Amino acid sequence: MPADSVATYVDERFDDFLADLESVVAQPSVSATGEGIPECADLAEALCRDYGFDETRTVETDGHSAVIAHAYADHDPNRQVATLLVYGHYDVQPVTPGEWTTPPFEPTTRDGPDGRRRLYGRGTGDNKGQWFAHLCAIRALRETTGLPVNVTLVLDGEEESGSEHLGTVVAENADALDGELVYIADGPVDDSGRPHVLMGARGLLYVKIDVSGADRDLHSGNYGGPVPNPAWALVGLLASMRTANGRVAVDGFYENVRPMADVDHEVLDAIPFDADALRRELGVRGFSVGPDETYLEKILYRPTLNVSGLTSGYGGDGTKTIIPSTASAKLGMRLVPDQRPNAVWRRVRDHVRSHAPETVDVTVRRLESMTPQRTSLDSPFTDPIVRAVRDAWEQDPVLKSSLGGSLPAYVFTEELGLPCIIVPYGNSDQNNHSPDENFTLENFEKGIYTTVRVLSELARE
Amino acid sequence: MPADSVATYVDERFDDFLADLESVVAQPSVSATGEGIPECADLAEALCRDYGFDETRTVETDGHSAVIAHAYADHDPNRQVATLLVYGHYDVQPVTPGEWTTPPFEPTTRDGPDGRRRLYGRGTGDNKGQWFAHLCAIRALRETTGLPVNVTLVLDGEEESGSEHLGTVVAENADALDGELVYIADGPVDDSGRPHVLMGARGLLYVKIDVSGADRDLHSGNYGGPVPNPAWALVGLLASMRTANGRVAVDGFYENVRPMADVDHEVLDAIPFDADALRRELGVRGFSVGPDETYLEKILYRPTLNVSGLTSGYGGDGTKTIIPSTASAKLGMRLVPDQRPNAVWRRVRDHVRSHAPETVDVTVRRLESMTPQRTSLDSPFTDPIVRAVRDAWEQDPVLKSSLGGSLPAYVFTEELGLPCIIVPYGNSDQNNHSPDENFTLENFEKGIYTTVRVLSELARE
Repeated sequence: MPADSVATYVDERFDDFLADLESVVAQPSVSATGEGIPECADLAEALCRDYGFDETRTVETDGHSAVIAHAYADHDPNRQVATLLVYGHYDVQPVTPGEWTTPPFEPTTRDGPDGRRRLYGRGTGDNKGQWFAHLCAIRALRETTGLPVNVTLVLDGEEESGSEHLGTVVAENADALDGELVYIADGPVDDSGRPHVLMGARGLLYVKIDVSGADRDLHSGNYGGPVPNPAWALVGLLASMRTANGRVAVDGFYENVRPMADVDHEVLDAIPFDADALRRELGVRGFSVGPDETYLEKILYRPTLNVSGLTSGYGGDGTKTIIPSTASAKLGMRLVPDQRPNAVWRRVRDHVRSHAPETVDVTVRRLESMTPQRTSLDSPFTDPIVRAVRDAWEQDPVLKSSLGGSLPAYVFTEELGLPCIIVPYGNSDQNNHSPDENFTLENFEKGIYTTVRVLSELARE
Repeated sequence: MPADSVATYVDERFDDFLADLESVVAQPSVSATGEGIPECADLAEALCRDYGFDETRTVETDGHSAVIAHAYADHDPNRQVATLLVYGHYDVQPVTPGEWTTPPFEPTTRDGPDGRRRLYGRGTGDNKGQWFAHLCAIRALRETTGLPVNVTLVLDGEEESGSEHLGTVVAENADALDGELVYIADGPVDDSGRPHVLMGARGLLYVKIDVSGADRDLHSGNYGGPVPNPAWALVGLLASMRTANGRVAVDGFYENVRPMADVDHEVLDAIPFDADALRRELGVRGFSVGPDETYLEKILYRPTLNVSGLTSGYGGDGTKTIIPSTASAKLGMRLVPDQRPNAVWRRVRDHVRSHAPETVDVTVRRLESMTPQRTSLDSPFTDPIVRAVRDAWEQDPVLKSSLGGSLPAYVFTEELGLPCIIVPYGNSDQNNHSPDENFTLENFEKGIYTTVRVLSELARE
């Protein structure tokens, strides 16, 4: 990092920042179950005040609360300054504690497999560490050169469960959320280690299919053969949703997928990608990529249908010879412009209904959805953000049309008409949504300084 | 029941018999996990002595022990008497306690949904209550008219896990297990309420398929699409094992299935079957029966492939947007003469290996197997057993070529060359292998008297 007074302050106070981040990670906040959510909202609000926000409040919703905080620029009152709207989320994914090296809600700092020092814990990278970097940046600016622009922070408590009420929060607080640009730090840097500047995010549609047969598990000898097996019905139904070459076989699924333009191919070609290195890092034998597509094209420009969970019958040790009474699948779809979750949902629902065997009961429910979003590459904010990221990371960022994952950026675009740019601070091996989630201390510190540079660049505009 | 002195004794002592059966059910003995197995073997041996067996011993194996007990006839030493070899098992299926109305190992007597009084608990029907009926019959005969034949009881501790070591137990104790007929009380009576006389059992092959991809669960947004998903690979693999009309699509699976003879069709046509009543009782919409087959034909004469468990990724509340790192299936096949488990296993293993996608790791393991077995309908023991069952139940038994389930009867047939006849004492809604397993007190008492009649009939031969 450049040796300016803000960087020096960040360096000197880094251990304090890390200790406060640990306190946020130690507070469970699993939106899927609700565990610790109100406590974490209170903690986030208290930390916003400690770190230099002028106003904070918790906005109740029919689900989990959002936190809104305002930090007003330290500036000449005669001059207009920009307002940056920053979005993050204080909720985290569920955990399976037995799979973790150290408990998910007992943050631990230790060296990672590559010797880089990391903070381990659920939410370190996704997303507590990343929005907490904004708080650290604001404190650092307040204590040194002054905060050059206004910052409005929106912390969602439902992002890992679909941000169902964020639209209402934004619509009902539209005046308070006035600004020029939405800025989001979420997701990982490039596998090459270079930072990302991302102009959008894939959408999401998450559904659950439940199949039920007899009203109890049945002995597979006394009933096996003629009595319908919900697990077989589920397998058949899922198999009907996918072709042998991995394409989604739901009628109309690819409708409205925006074709790639020349600029998309140019941007895509400029993205570094080392398939072998990634294959080794993930521990997979290979990738499912057809002859007429590339890995990056599939992640950035194609929708996908993933099984995230299968549950039926007996999974314990040894054998249990039953016909299970039920079988369930959780399916997550990533959507791209200009797919709309409602339209895809109708297609999936109709497919399931028309392919369900008559001998079992099949229901399909929508659990969450997010609209895909993209900001034009020629936005006036692209250059300042790219400059800020280059300054902080001392290397050129990788510019992409989209994040592979999903963010409710579309809410701000649709409700407020604002452009949105995403700059991930997480390390590429952050294990978000997985056991041993972590955030390298280097990325935490670079993240803080990135926010400092972004705020400074916006002040120059 | 007829009002003879043995029946009167059984009636008077029934509450004591029930209390002792409760003590056996209260002792967990889950062979899949080993829970309580040695304690249950000790308890079974002690009860055999209490109930009139002359010699008992526990036979150690490389797995769980078997119990062998001998009861010698009270007879004129100058007369030759028959020896009946009785097989049962003291182990039980695993339990999921939360699904039970009363705890599985806290036996409870209460009225069932139809008002019939029942003992609830894991193993009440499968198989503790059924072999305990033999003990009660021996005590009743000893205390009244005398035991007319020798009885050798073999109690297996591994039946619910495939009876892996029963072959060794029988082979190494062949002299002690000399006799004329193997008699087994296991499984349920007919859905019509009439008793069964069954001349065989389907075999079993139980396998587990494990698929693994990346070395950890991955974020479905950052990696979804090109990174292989083990759950999809498993779904594809399972779907490849079954045709749309429910036939097993594993090459060679039906090899050596014995065609039905005329006598099989005659016996099948005489079996009462009320599809609507069964459909209502099980709570299913319908049955998977093709146009050229019947429900009973599928249960008694056809092999089947059942999914007994599916496990992958997240099955909890809400959403978790991952690509699971692993996916597993447990598959149970019921086999019929003249299929051999080893041959079917090779077919299934080869199918899985040749259909496994290259991008994931796939393993298939055999967990247990049993050879199918059938005794000829014109065995000299068919008539006496049918008479005994008719006397005890006061109605004609349903004669079938086979039990739908599996029993290691083949071990006795192959090692000792003995015929085997199965007479189930369980009620048809016994929920064996399921929550709320139960045994009606009426069937328990009729079972005791059936054993009394069988022993008396054999003495007349």
